[in-house]
Amino acid sequence: MKRINVVGMGPGAWDKMTIEAAKALEESDTIIGYTVYVDLLRDHLADKEFLTTPMTKEVDRCRMAFEEAEKGKNVSLVCSGDAGVYGMSGLMYQIGEDYPQVELNIIPGVTAALGGAAILGAPLIHDFCLISLSDLLTPIEKIQKRLEAAGEADFVVVLYNPSSRKRADYLQKACDILLRYRDPSTVCGIVENIGREGETKKVLTLRELRDTPVNMFTTVFIGNSQTKEIQNNMVTPRGYRDV
Amino acid sequence: MKRINVVGMGPGAWDKMTIEAAKALEESDTIIGYTVYVDLLRDHLADKEFLTTPMTKEVDRCRMAFEEAEKGKNVSLVCSGDAGVYGMSGLMYQIGEDYPQVELNIIPGVTAALGGAAILGAPLIHDFCLISLSDLLTPIEKIQKRLEAAGEADFVVVLYNPSSRKRADYLQKACDILLRYRDPSTVCGIVENIGREGETKKVLTLRELRDTPVNMFTTVFIGNSQTKEIQNNMVTPRGYRDV
Ligand SMILES: C[S@@+](CC[C@H](N)C(=O)[O-])C[C@H]1O[C@@H](n2cnc3c(N)ncnc32)[C@H](O)[C@@H]1O
Ligand SMILES: C[S@@+](CC[C@H](N)C(=O)[O-])C[C@H]1O[C@@H](n2cnc3c(N)ncnc32)[C@H](O)[C@@H]1O
Repeated sequence: MKRINVVGMGPGAWDKMTIEAAKALEESDTIIGYTVYVDLLRDHLADKEFLTTPMTKEVDRCRMAFEEAEKGKNVSLVCSGDAGVYGMSGLMYQIGEDYPQVELNIIPGVTAALGGAAILGAPLIHDFCLISLSDLLTPIEKIQKRLEAAGEADFVVVLYNPSSRKRADYLQKACDILLRYRDPSTVCGIVENIGREGETKKVLTLRELRDTPVNMFTTVFIGNSQTKEIQNNMVTPRGYRDV
Repeated sequence: MKRINVVGMGPGAWDKMTIEAAKALEESDTIIGYTVYVDLLRDHLADKEFLTTPMTKEVDRCRMAFEEAEKGKNVSLVCSGDAGVYGMSGLMYQIGEDYPQVELNIIPGVTAALGGAAILGAPLIHDFCLISLSDLLTPIEKIQKRLEAAGEADFVVVLYNPSSRKRADYLQKACDILLRYRDPSTVCGIVENIGREGETKKVLTLRELRDTPVNMFTTVFIGNSQTKEIQNNMVTPRGYRDV
């Protein structure tokens, strides 16, 4: 049985990858990924064949992995963060139906929510949800409904894909929905370039967040009703009867 | 400035830890944690001082870490999965207010949701939420409200702490809430002992899940309206206009 590793490389820095992920890459003949991520790995991996495709060519990238594996190569497909969170592992299973003789080995990694949380303090200690603001594949009404639900049920919210050129005001709109349920002073955080050059964090209120421009390399955290700022860190208590 | 590492060790196996986490542990004098997790590490770490406390003594464990750091020791506090997800990093910040001369270095790890997802396939590709069924620190009404919200807004749901002796029927109740919004044939998954001896996975329907007993070493996944079973794997598409 042929096998492809689908590897979550963590937020960026080599050290934030799991030992298992590093081993899988080191044992591969061919490493396939989006150009920007593959470039973060090259220095650590000599003698590998690197195949890259641009951001939007995800289906091509998956097929490329299966074609290389069928040639008998030991293949790893890499994604940033975890390949199973807004990543490529789902598509690999879907396309994999055409390649029943190839098995998938999914290697988990530290997703941006966890990497960013560690930089901000401890915002995700209690129930939270991840919502992508990208409406490329999801109707905007569905996204809004999820923001409403998260607001109403007092989840900590992590926003992925908070911005793009076409969606410059989406974060503002998301904050407006949450402001219907949560105090303007709710503790929030943003982290840019987690584990990469230019890493920056900011702890701010929900009202301030609403008017803060962010880019696509940013993950946004919105606290629940209990989240506190402790010495410029964002900290959510474990529960409602806590110290 | 003194410093404590708060380390997420991933689901269990040494290899599922990040390189950064392993380095931090290797450079520590003293490693503190819950007995069961520390035992998973001992073989890999010679010459360390290990301090353990039972499960419930979390505040003691945190204070122990600060006291050891104040003595000048290089201390790591370990948690399973990610220390920031139903873990101890929040409590460390809260108790840390009494120790302003000690800095916290949070090292993220693969939480059970990500470790379990990789075993099940790709259940978390799109928006999801984590809900703990433990009502030790959270009123049960709050938990129920979050289940309702997750059901209504079609989030994939991951349940932590799905069972204990006192809460034998909580998973059943949670499923009953979700069954008000989701089809009984919704694709679900359970994973027990992720990354540990006795790892087992099962893909099943929501109706079957309702009547399946689970233990506290289990993480439960409930698909959204789009989640499919592909060759006994649980796979959620990236969106609603997907292949
Ligand atoms: C298509 S998603 C990919 C997520 C990735 N698979 C993961 O698990 O982190 C891209 C979004 O993830 C977030 N993200 C990924 N890597 C990041 C990083 N290093 N720093 C900040 N945000 C990041 C941003 O919100 C970005 O818009
Ligand atoms: C108090 S929480 C700790 C979570 C941990 N900090 C993490 O990030 O994974 C304990 C719950 O996490 C889940 N869990 C943790 N480790 C697990 C493992 N190795 N296998 C299955 N479930 C696990 C179970 O639902 C368990 O009841």
